[in-house]
Amino acid sequence: MKKLNIGLVGYQFMGKAHANAYRQVSKFFADMEVEPVLKALCGRNEERVAAAAHKFGFESYETDYHALLARKDIDLIDVVTPGNSHAEIAVAAAKAGKMVICEKPLANTVPEAEAMVQAVKESGVPNAVCFNYRRVPAVALAKRMIAEGRLGKIYHFRGTYLQDWIVDPKMPLVWRLQGDIAGSGSHGDLNAHLIDTAHYLLGGITEVSGMLDTFIKQRPKLAASDDRLGGTASDEMGEVTVDDSSIFIARFDSGAVGTFEATRMAPGRKNYNRWEINGEKGSIVFNMERMNELEYYNAGDPADVRGFRVIQTTDNPHPYTANYWPVGHIIGYEHTFINFMHDVLGDFAAGRPTHPNFEDGLACQKVLDAVDRSSRNRAWETV
Amino acid sequence: MKKLNIGLVGYQFMGKAHANAYRQVSKFFADMEVEPVLKALCGRNEERVAAAAHKFGFESYETDYHALLARKDIDLIDVVTPGNSHAEIAVAAAKAGKMVICEKPLANTVPEAEAMVQAVKESGVPNAVCFNYRRVPAVALAKRMIAEGRLGKIYHFRGTYLQDWIVDPKMPLVWRLQGDIAGSGSHGDLNAHLIDTAHYLLGGITEVSGMLDTFIKQRPKLAASDDRLGGTASDEMGEVTVDDSSIFIARFDSGAVGTFEATRMAPGRKNYNRWEINGEKGSIVFNMERMNELEYYNAGDPADVRGFRVIQTTDNPHPYTANYWPVGHIIGYEHTFINFMHDVLGDFAAGRPTHPNFEDGLACQKVLDAVDRSSRNRAWETV
Amino acid sequence: MKKLNIGLVGYQFMGKAHANAYRQVSKFFADMEVEPVLKALCGRNEERVAAAAHKFGFESYETDYHALLARKDIDLIDVVTPGNSHAEIAVAAAKAGKMVICEKPLANTVPEAEAMVQAVKESGVPNAVCFNYRRVPAVALAKRMIAEGRLGKIYHFRGTYLQDWIVDPKMPLVWRLQGDIAGSGSHGDLNAHLIDTAHYLLGGITEVSGMLDTFIKQRPKLAASDDRLGGTASDEMGEVTVDDSSIFIARFDSGAVGTFEATRMAPGRKNYNRWEINGEKGSIVFNMERMNELEYYNAGDPADVRGFRVIQTTDNPHPYTANYWPVGHIIGYEHTFINFMHDVLGDFAAGRPTHPNFEDGLACQKVLDAVDRSSRNRAWETV
Amino acid sequence: MKKLNIGLVGYQFMGKAHANAYRQVSKFFADMEVEPVLKALCGRNEERVAAAAHKFGFESYETDYHALLARKDIDLIDVVTPGNSHAEIAVAAAKAGKMVICEKPLANTVPEAEAMVQAVKESGVPNAVCFNYRRVPAVALAKRMIAEGRLGKIYHFRGTYLQDWIVDPKMPLVWRLQGDIAGSGSHGDLNAHLIDTAHYLLGGITEVSGMLDTFIKQRPKLAASDDRLGGTASDEMGEVTVDDSSIFIARFDSGAVGTFEATRMAPGRKNYNRWEINGEKGSIVFNMERMNELEYYNAGDPADVRGFRVIQTTDNPHPYTANYWPVGHIIGYEHTFINFMHDVLGDFAAGRPTHPNFEDGLACQKVLDAVDRSSRNRAWETV
Repeated sequence: MKKLNIGLVGYQFMGKAHANAYRQVSKFFADMEVEPVLKALCGRNEERVAAAAHKFGFESYETDYHALLARKDIDLIDVVTPGNSHAEIAVAAAKAGKMVICEKPLANTVPEAEAMVQAVKESGVPNAVCFNYRRVPAVALAKRMIAEGRLGKIYHFRGTYLQDWIVDPKMPLVWRLQGDIAGSGSHGDLNAHLIDTAHYLLGGITEVSGMLDTFIKQRPKLAASDDRLGGTASDEMGEVTVDDSSIFIARFDSGAVGTFEATRMAPGRKNYNRWEINGEKGSIVFNMERMNELEYYNAGDPADVRGFRVIQTTDNPHPYTANYWPVGHIIGYEHTFINFMHDVLGDFAAGRPTHPNFEDGLACQKVLDAVDRSSRNRAWETV
Repeated sequence: MKKLNIGLVGYQFMGKAHANAYRQVSKFFADMEVEPVLKALCGRNEERVAAAAHKFGFESYETDYHALLARKDIDLIDVVTPGNSHAEIAVAAAKAGKMVICEKPLANTVPEAEAMVQAVKESGVPNAVCFNYRRVPAVALAKRMIAEGRLGKIYHFRGTYLQDWIVDPKMPLVWRLQGDIAGSGSHGDLNAHLIDTAHYLLGGITEVSGMLDTFIKQRPKLAASDDRLGGTASDEMGEVTVDDSSIFIARFDSGAVGTFEATRMAPGRKNYNRWEINGEKGSIVFNMERMNELEYYNAGDPADVRGFRVIQTTDNPHPYTANYWPVGHIIGYEHTFINFMHDVLGDFAAGRPTHPNFEDGLACQKVLDAVDRSSRNRAWETV
Repeated sequence: MKKLNIGLVGYQFMGKAHANAYRQVSKFFADMEVEPVLKALCGRNEERVAAAAHKFGFESYETDYHALLARKDIDLIDVVTPGNSHAEIAVAAAKAGKMVICEKPLANTVPEAEAMVQAVKESGVPNAVCFNYRRVPAVALAKRMIAEGRLGKIYHFRGTYLQDWIVDPKMPLVWRLQGDIAGSGSHGDLNAHLIDTAHYLLGGITEVSGMLDTFIKQRPKLAASDDRLGGTASDEMGEVTVDDSSIFIARFDSGAVGTFEATRMAPGRKNYNRWEINGEKGSIVFNMERMNELEYYNAGDPADVRGFRVIQTTDNPHPYTANYWPVGHIIGYEHTFINFMHDVLGDFAAGRPTHPNFEDGLACQKVLDAVDRSSRNRAWETV
Repeated sequence: MKKLNIGLVGYQFMGKAHANAYRQVSKFFADMEVEPVLKALCGRNEERVAAAAHKFGFESYETDYHALLARKDIDLIDVVTPGNSHAEIAVAAAKAGKMVICEKPLANTVPEAEAMVQAVKESGVPNAVCFNYRRVPAVALAKRMIAEGRLGKIYHFRGTYLQDWIVDPKMPLVWRLQGDIAGSGSHGDLNAHLIDTAHYLLGGITEVSGMLDTFIKQRPKLAASDDRLGGTASDEMGEVTVDDSSIFIARFDSGAVGTFEATRMAPGRKNYNRWEINGEKGSIVFNMERMNELEYYNAGDPADVRGFRVIQTTDNPHPYTANYWPVGHIIGYEHTFINFMHDVLGDFAAGRPTHPNFEDGLACQKVLDAVDRSSRNRAWETV
């Protein structure tokens, strides 16, 4: 099998998830045309990047992404750094002729995202943005059901992405709470996922009215971060420069209407990426906390036995799952990345267009931007 | 509309539930052929029976059931006393030519139950035993689905009836914990319901192997009871003379196998009368704590969208519910008695046989007895 | 016990629910100071009002509400007609010196609602608006928990009221779909409930941005209605003049933010009045389809055993429930009206202020109006 | 880090799961003292074992386990063949001085299991039996809670392990349905898991009364198997020589009572390994289909907010989970094996006793045997 040499930039939570996906994908999918090789990990702190490279199983490491891009033995650059460096690295990677994968959201601003799209167009390199939730089996099943018309005309999208990891005012100012690095808070981190899912399942969003809020305006500065979103606090306080919650209502090109709510201030909600779609023929509900399940109501069922059913998406006809374990033996969060890499690397190898690509990432960015404008202008904004 | 004069013997929890049913049934069901009249309430303590008669809306009261039976203006005797007086009163009522309804379990022993069946046969009076759970809409729907063959051949019945109201060792010795009055504990109180449901849905049980256990052997004697199962404790301790839990496995005449577990020692389970049936074509699950719902798995659904669905049994085609409120507006525990009275009084008025009747009550009693023997003999016992 | 003579205007779904509540309240609540008497039912169609009066148990009927108001033997007027006649009847009742209860929403417009508040103020009559969901035990428990500070500062209210009874385009134009009668659709029918709940639990809403939509613009005209929301269709088509869905985002006086979504176009949702509240110390979730339960997450629980718990609100310490059945024996939709009448009639009898009263109804109306303006003006509107 | 060379015998479903665990364990657990190396895979069919060795990432393969045992470069033998060869291979491995891990159930008979225990005792080699469900984070949390006394004295264990993959009579006679290979059906495959869990959490089982049943007595012979439990059918029919369901009731040494039910004939249940434990201070519920959750009822909670809570066991204080992903990002079935290998290889490396070991496997086997005797003798049997 042909080898595909990966250069991964970034090594925290997302670095761990992507590295695992590259390592595992050819162990589970028999139809891979290329075998990813963990060639080089890149990060600015040598001690830490060396340790991570060893832990994740990389053959080498670099401390400067320019050096990484200069290497002939690297085929694909995967950017999993904070949002403020996505554009710079991805554009450079495209110019260097590398295939490029970028974590979501694609960038911190629309102009950055546009530059990235421009760069991959000009260089013609395969590109993808890692909205991994498209590759949850239940989400892929939902897509198939909608495409087959099983829900009929769609009226409502109702998305909430709730977490609670910053409810405690003592939670320190990790980079995800710093606007100059992360771009935004729950907005770009969580609502971006909902927006991409809505684009994937319902098509384009045309206009929005929203509000971004920061409930806790000061937090302890960060002493040291861990690889699970958190870290330890210092004694000094700093300004929170991102939103705690991001809420908007929307109209779709199709005539459907939507509500979107992302917050990190919902006690008890851990990774509650839950959405519901109501169409003329039925409804579906997904919740990432129970990602192996899809709820489905078929209005066409006999009237005395209609009800929301819980589909365990681990059965043979479901997307991806036959590559893993028998029916009822669930997969986890990390498998969404494995599935993603299977599809994307397969498309790259075959020269097929892939989705979500940088243009999909830009489309998401434009909605994020419209909501931001709407929040500031206190008015509906077109995307 | 023809009046049907009710004489109710007993006025605690069950007296309240039956009185309410008589009061409400003709307000909701338009097809009633008779209108029950709360004619007389009977109890031995005059002060309390008078107060209850007033509260429930009875026209009069009696302190001796013989006096009640002697009244010409009473058409139907309803016995809701503790189990040790069911046989005596019901037999006398039958001999007095009254229609008779009796709370479950029919009696404390098989000979008592046999005498009751004998009495109603000889006098030819209409009779019923109040296994009210047959009249939960979801249970009646389950019956219809099974009768229509929607589950195919049935393999498994899996019943648990769990409560927790005696977990606290300080819970006093109410009459339900006294063997000479109640006959048994969770066995006759809770497992009797499961047995009747199993008989209703799957047919006869042929043999059983079981065990009855009393985990807490002494409790404070009762000072005063309330109408919600509990009461206040005295300082003196007494022996618990009934079982805390009743567990058995069973074979049905049909070839199906079953498990039955009743206990009052399951913290968090309040009225968890939950059973599951697995047949070749599907499964159904019921839980009395969510009595407006029936779970159903249809193995014949398309393979990619199979799953347990939660049917809200408040829709037009569901049993009983069109007589109450619009779809999604749930009914409660008390409505099972209203439905029961609708069916039974309708059958009585029309001269139709009704179910569950005293023979059904006897059939249940025989299973209870077989389990009791099995527990003592440590062997399988035939029913 | 003192009698309180009720004159009820209207006899469809709500008439049935209110009549039942008056009939039942003194059977369950031992502390009633007055006993409601079903004195007269009022409706314009003599044949139908006579039949309903008989069915519900009224002593008499009237076909003109002026005649009802003129009767000396009527103490309280309860208005359960469609919204377009609330103001006229209630104002007249107040002027006639009657106590007055009115179904929600209080009126079809703010000026109507203001006139009603004015009328009850001038005449000084006790008044209430029947936002019955405040009297769901779980909702009353939520109120108590918030009042006790168990959720701490509240950040989010997230309300959805979803139904599906008009998804079928063949569903006829019942009065609830006619703007001149109902005022609005899901907006005043469903979102009004969410708004009142939000007011009850979080306090005032200050500004809103929303959108009202009608997805199906023509439906068959109505041939005949039933008492369960539906009816039979004629061959002729007519215009739908109310909204199918009503969606808005909101800011509260307290600093909290909220989302509100009401629709009758959500297949599988029957009476899915579900809301979630997130505060600094915990979260609560309610769903009317499982109205006997309240979900609660206590962020203060030990870190290894935190989770959303399902409280069965049928236990002794819960509001209202000790008046009904033992723990775990659930109540239904109709009991919310019984509880409401218990509280309101008790307050009326004692001369205490009651809630929700006409001023509460007006406050809700103002939010409905602001959303309507926002939808038309495509801008945030202050309440 | 010290290397530990693994020789894995068997390469179907379990081979895949164990190989993955060896491959992944040191990528997630930072505290590993040894690093497992996929040295050799062993199977009798050269073509297939070679392919599997390549797919799983083994350095080499063998077609005769004697050759594998003779290799000096193999430190640990892991036996994942069908049950009828466990004893032969494991005994030989022990005699060859290899560490040995064996899939569950340990053997097909008690004498076989005894010989295995004897062999590892005599040779003194570290040994473990792969009851992987002990290493589900939720199960390990349950163990900790019980050990800390949070449930108090335990009264009930209620286990069901339900699947549906053989409900279709056309499902072919895979090896798991052949008694001479598998030993038993749902009994040793599924009830063995429940028994081990019960032993782990409640201690020893002393006596049992049970019944084994085969509902479908003939099935098509197998043409070819897959790695997900199934296969393709031939035209010829054969006898099913294992049980379809295995049900028993039990008494524990501690005084607790238990019910155990395993079946492969429950439509809709995919991997429904669900058990509930009721103790004097609370209850816990686990369901493998939602393995990232543990339900817990704390009877000591304030009376108005008691309820079963759903603990998402992905939080920092939970067993194992801090090694994977942030809170709310779930793990899957395969991680139970990774956790198992972490613990067992750690114990092996440190010279600590590990659990579950061969003696634990024997204890389980004795219960399976007692149930089998009970089913044939129709009587209680002591273990």
